[in-house]
Amino acid sequence: MKNLLLKGMLALLLLAHAAFAADVLPSWNDVASKRSIIAFVDAVTTPGSKDFVPVPERIAVFDNDGTLWAEQPMYFQAFFVFDRIKALAPQHPEWKTREPFASVLKGDLKAALAGGEHALVEMVMATHAGMTTDEFDQIVRDWIATARHPDTGHLFTAMVYQPMLELLDYLRANGFKTFIVSGGGIEFMRPWSERVYGIPPEQVIGSSGGLKYEVRDGTPVIVKLPEIDFVDDKAGKPAGIQRHIGRRPIAAFGNSDGDLQMLQWTTAGKGARFALYVHHTDAEREYAYDRTSSIGRLDKGLDEAAEKGWTVVDMKNDWTVIYLPDGK
Amino acid sequence: MKNLLLKGMLALLLLAHAAFAADVLPSWNDVASKRSIIAFVDAVTTPGSKDFVPVPERIAVFDNDGTLWAEQPMYFQAFFVFDRIKALAPQHPEWKTREPFASVLKGDLKAALAGGEHALVEMVMATHAGMTTDEFDQIVRDWIATARHPDTGHLFTAMVYQPMLELLDYLRANGFKTFIVSGGGIEFMRPWSERVYGIPPEQVIGSSGGLKYEVRDGTPVIVKLPEIDFVDDKAGKPAGIQRHIGRRPIAAFGNSDGDLQMLQWTTAGKGARFALYVHHTDAEREYAYDRTSSIGRLDKGLDEAAEKGWTVVDMKNDWTVIYLPDGK
Repeated sequence: MKNLLLKGMLALLLLAHAAFAADVLPSWNDVASKRSIIAFVDAVTTPGSKDFVPVPERIAVFDNDGTLWAEQPMYFQAFFVFDRIKALAPQHPEWKTREPFASVLKGDLKAALAGGEHALVEMVMATHAGMTTDEFDQIVRDWIATARHPDTGHLFTAMVYQPMLELLDYLRANGFKTFIVSGGGIEFMRPWSERVYGIPPEQVIGSSGGLKYEVRDGTPVIVKLPEIDFVDDKAGKPAGIQRHIGRRPIAAFGNSDGDLQMLQWTTAGKGARFALYVHHTDAEREYAYDRTSSIGRLDKGLDEAAEKGWTVVDMKNDWTVIYLPDGK
Repeated sequence: MKNLLLKGMLALLLLAHAAFAADVLPSWNDVASKRSIIAFVDAVTTPGSKDFVPVPERIAVFDNDGTLWAEQPMYFQAFFVFDRIKALAPQHPEWKTREPFASVLKGDLKAALAGGEHALVEMVMATHAGMTTDEFDQIVRDWIATARHPDTGHLFTAMVYQPMLELLDYLRANGFKTFIVSGGGIEFMRPWSERVYGIPPEQVIGSSGGLKYEVRDGTPVIVKLPEIDFVDDKAGKPAGIQRHIGRRPIAAFGNSDGDLQMLQWTTAGKGARFALYVHHTDAEREYAYDRTSSIGRLDKGLDEAAEKGWTVVDMKNDWTVIYLPDGK
C-alpha cells in the first residue's frame, strides 16, 4: 500500500514536470536556442549542482531596443522626439526656420537626422529637459498610450516580443532579478516598463540627463536639465551595470554591437554564464538586418558570438510568434 | 460546534497578533517614535485603507552614516582612507613630504583634514581610484573584516544600530523594499551592505567616481577613475533617488541636515508619507551631538521636523540598546 502510494506520487510528479516543461517558453520552437536557455537555468538553479548560483546573484540584464521590442525603421524614442517637437512647435516659432527642427515640422525626418549626433542631441534636449520629472513621466505615459507605429499601426508597446516576455517570466520564476540596460533614455522607459515587461523602474538602466532638486513655491521638484549625464551604450553598459547594480550579471541578452561589451563583461565572470543575441532574420513578420544596418548593427557581435559559443536566436526559425498575439 | 471552532480560531488569531505586536521592534521602548512607525506601516499595508500602498510602491530610503551605523568621531570611511594611505605609502615615497598625506603618515589626522574639501578629495582619489572594481571590492572586504573603531575597539560593522536593523526587517516583512541613500562611497558600502543590513548592492545609492570599461590582456575589467561623478548628499539625494530608483519613496530615514532634501522630497508626494530623524542624544552609550557638530550636523532638519510633525527618535530614551548586542 505504501509502495503504491509512493508510485502514484512519483507518477504525478513526473506528469507535473512534463506539463511544466511543455509550458516553458511556449512561443519558442524546440531548437538549440531554447534548449541552451533551459540548460543554463537548470544548471544555476539545481541545488548541489557545481554551477548553482544563490538567488541574490541571479542577475539578468536585457537590452531594450531590438531585444525586447522592435527598433525599425527608427528607435521608437525617435518617434517620441518628433511628436514632441510638433507638439511644442507653437511655443517655438523660431523652429520653423531652424534645423533640425524645421525638417521635422515639414515631416522630413531623414533630413532632420542628417545633422548627425549634434542634431539628435539638440532634439533630445529640446524635448527631454526643462520640465520636472513628474511632468515628463506624464508626457511619456500620454504618448505611449496613443502613439502608433508607422508600419504596423500598432501601439509601440504591442511591438514587444512575446517570446522575450516569456523568457523574462521564466527567469523570474527561477529566482532571477531582471534588469533593462538600454541606450535609450532611462526616464522614457520607466513609466511603462513595469506594466509591459514586469520590470520596475528601479531595475531600468539607461542613458540619462542631469537632474536638479529644487523647491519651487514651497513644492519640492526634480528638474530635468539640458545636459547629458550618462550614455548607456557600448562600453557605457558595463559601467552603467556597475553603477546601478554593483555586481556582475550572470546572464545578458542583446541584439547589436552596442550590447557587445555588456555580453563580454557578463560572460567573463566566474562560474556559469549565459549570453544571447537576438538576430533579426524575419523580413516578413518583423525586419531582417544585421551587419550593415545603421540601426541595431550586429557585426562584431555576430563574429564574437560564433567564436565564444554564445546563443544566437534566429527570429524567423526559433520563434512561433513575434509580437504580442493580441497587439494593436 | 462550528461556532466553537470559529471562536477558537479567532482566539488563536488574536493571540498570534498580540505575540506579533510584542515582537515588533523589540529594542524600541513603547514611545511615540515606535508608535508612529507602526501606525504608518499599518495604514499603508491594510487592504481597503484609504492610505493603502501597493507593494511595488513601498520604497523606503535610509541614510547610512549616523542613521544605520555610527559616524563619530569621523565618518568610518575616513578611517578606511587613512588606513589605505598608510598601506600604500611604500609605493608613494613622495607622500612623506606632501600634504595631506604627510600628516596622515605622522598620525595627525586633524592636520590632514585641515586642508578642507580639496585635501579630502585628494585623499579619496589616491585611495579609491586606479584599481579595478573587483580589486577595490576585495580591499574593502579585507579592511571591514579586521579594522576596529578607535573609541570602542569594535569592528565597524558591529557599530550598526540594533533598533534600526529591526526597523529594516520590520519594513521588509511588510513588503517594503529598503534602499541606502548615503553621502558615503557607493563602492565602499556594497561589499558588506547585504551581509550587515540585508540590503543588496543594487539597492545601495551613494557618492561615486567615474568608471571605465576596458579589456586588459583579453580580460574585461572596470577601472575606477580619479574623478568625482556624483555627490549623493543634500540636494544630491533626491537626484540620486530619481536616477537609481525612478520613483518617489514613501518613507525616509536620516539623521542630519544632509538628509533634509531627501525627507522633503519623500514627504511631498501624494498619500501617506513618513519621515524620521535619528537624534543623537546618548553621550553615554553612543555620542550626543546635533546643531553645532561638524560631522552629522542636525540643525535645520530639527526645526523642519518640529514644524512638519516628522518623527524624531531620542536615542537615549527610545532605544533599549544601541549597537549589536553581540558586537566586538
